[in-house]
Amino acid sequence: MKKVAIGIDIGGTNTVIGIVDREGNVLMKDSIATPTHGNAALFVDEMAGSVRNMIHAVKKLNPETEVLGIGIGAPNANYYTGNIEHAPNLSFKGIVPLVRLLENNFPELKAIAITNDANAAAIGEMVYGGAKGMKNFVVYTLGTGVGSGVVVNGDLVYGADGFAGECGHTTIVEGGRLCGCGGYGHLEAYCSAPGMKRTAFELLSKYNAVNSPLANKNFNELDAKTIFEAAESGDSIAREVFELTGKWLGLGLANTVHHLSPEAIFLFGGPTAAGTYIFRPTTESMEHHLLPIFKNKVKILPSHLKAGDAAIVGASALVYKELEKNLH
Amino acid sequence: MKKVAIGIDIGGTNTVIGIVDREGNVLMKDSIATPTHGNAALFVDEMAGSVRNMIHAVKKLNPETEVLGIGIGAPNANYYTGNIEHAPNLSFKGIVPLVRLLENNFPELKAIAITNDANAAAIGEMVYGGAKGMKNFVVYTLGTGVGSGVVVNGDLVYGADGFAGECGHTTIVEGGRLCGCGGYGHLEAYCSAPGMKRTAFELLSKYNAVNSPLANKNFNELDAKTIFEAAESGDSIAREVFELTGKWLGLGLANTVHHLSPEAIFLFGGPTAAGTYIFRPTTESMEHHLLPIFKNKVKILPSHLKAGDAAIVGASALVYKELEKNLH
Repeated sequence: MKKVAIGIDIGGTNTVIGIVDREGNVLMKDSIATPTHGNAALFVDEMAGSVRNMIHAVKKLNPETEVLGIGIGAPNANYYTGNIEHAPNLSFKGIVPLVRLLENNFPELKAIAITNDANAAAIGEMVYGGAKGMKNFVVYTLGTGVGSGVVVNGDLVYGADGFAGECGHTTIVEGGRLCGCGGYGHLEAYCSAPGMKRTAFELLSKYNAVNSPLANKNFNELDAKTIFEAAESGDSIAREVFELTGKWLGLGLANTVHHLSPEAIFLFGGPTAAGTYIFRPTTESMEHHLLPIFKNKVKILPSHLKAGDAAIVGASALVYKELEKNLH
Repeated sequence: MKKVAIGIDIGGTNTVIGIVDREGNVLMKDSIATPTHGNAALFVDEMAGSVRNMIHAVKKLNPETEVLGIGIGAPNANYYTGNIEHAPNLSFKGIVPLVRLLENNFPELKAIAITNDANAAAIGEMVYGGAKGMKNFVVYTLGTGVGSGVVVNGDLVYGADGFAGECGHTTIVEGGRLCGCGGYGHLEAYCSAPGMKRTAFELLSKYNAVNSPLANKNFNELDAKTIFEAAESGDSIAREVFELTGKWLGLGLANTVHHLSPEAIFLFGGPTAAGTYIFRPTTESMEHHLLPIFKNKVKILPSHLKAGDAAIVGASALVYKELEKNLH
């Protein structure tokens, strides 16, 4: 029997569904629009239809395939309740009992579980990626926001209420920038892709840098990729953006190390494509902020999950963790 | 059989040894000077002699007593290795294999373990105190420094290297006050008892507060107790010290909540005797800094361990946690 798991990534615009094997390879993929109509039951019906079609197709390819379960990554997902709760970027209002609705559709599956996308990334790193064999590590996902997933003693930390691992909303600059959540000075407001853009505009203003290539983009146009390209072409504003982003991120990572003493911290997401531009200043800043007992111990590593499929691969990994737990 | 555990608290000046029953009552206590001669083997001999005398005495009182093990709380103690490693405030240089030395002395005991005092306080809270039945909580110890112990899924978090839970050295003010560790802007530099004194001196300077009772104490005299008494007598400087201390502490606790989503955070140590003067602004600040999903969920509670004996009681609790683990 070839065992596979289904991973579902519910995003603001699209919901991607994939069948993933034990090595983290995506065998098959489908995508449906995340609805704007707010009707969760209809959405689950459509999702279940797609899953059923894919199970059918994968078994046709290899009749020896066993589908173990479904793992879902979604914003504001609560692992304990199986619900999506008050997600500001989805059209569903209030509480959506997604796991229960899917269990009704697939009573034959051994495990159906949900968590947020950063937690799914951490589980993906543990099951298929660079954290295999690690018992204590943290994943930071850098993108439109900054998410995180925390693993302690080999298990993802959900905390008392299912929502642990919101390190993007730790305060790194008291009274600092407005964050998307309404708070101030959060890591996310500095180290997300939009945070980097904000830093670029601060620096353009500070230096009146009319000759920077970044000076030709408006606030809604400039993105992290453009900043990276400008850095590569030698632009000093873009390079300072990375220095400052790394300084702030390293401070946040040091705070995480002082809480948890992880073996490694993985960075995932668009801005990490800038490689040494972001990893070097982040590492320097983290080391600078660490107690002597922690210095030169904690690795900062790029995620080993493939960028395009990471969300569904991470979500599918939830299934293997659930089945492991059921063994105990 | 009446089962008891031995708790040892190694401090900079004194080492206190106690026999503690399953309910956390101290049945017997002894104290020896923590040596300044730097000879660890001699120190362990003396400690072992005292322990042996106490075991003898407690069995004389009740021949049905079974001594289960020894738990030790000490600065820079590494749970995984059983060593005290490079403790700056003890005379022993380098690495002291304390657990191994004690095991040589007491091969008959089922469990001998060591951790730092804040971790011991967290385990004490879990075994005997206010965290009974809680699976996810954090203890902050406020005193000369600020320590912390983190519990996730019912287990103390030691992290990859045995030193997790140094939340006192998270940065809350980038580029802020010099901390005892050599870093800047750490929580400990603001929320420890000396941190409160530093705040008082800043406020005396800011307001030129010649009429404050705190204006009659020099920098080396002023302590947290005096500030509390001044606050009680209505002094506005002292009251603002508590407001600011709570503001900083609440920010740090919010960062902890965003990492771990604990059910409760316990505060332990001298400054907590000020009660509502410290708990109210701390709670307000933590709530202010929390994401909406965490608001009004996390309790900030005073430690339930008795102040005088907490260190040995906490250390003794290590023994019960070790024996629990051996059952699995």
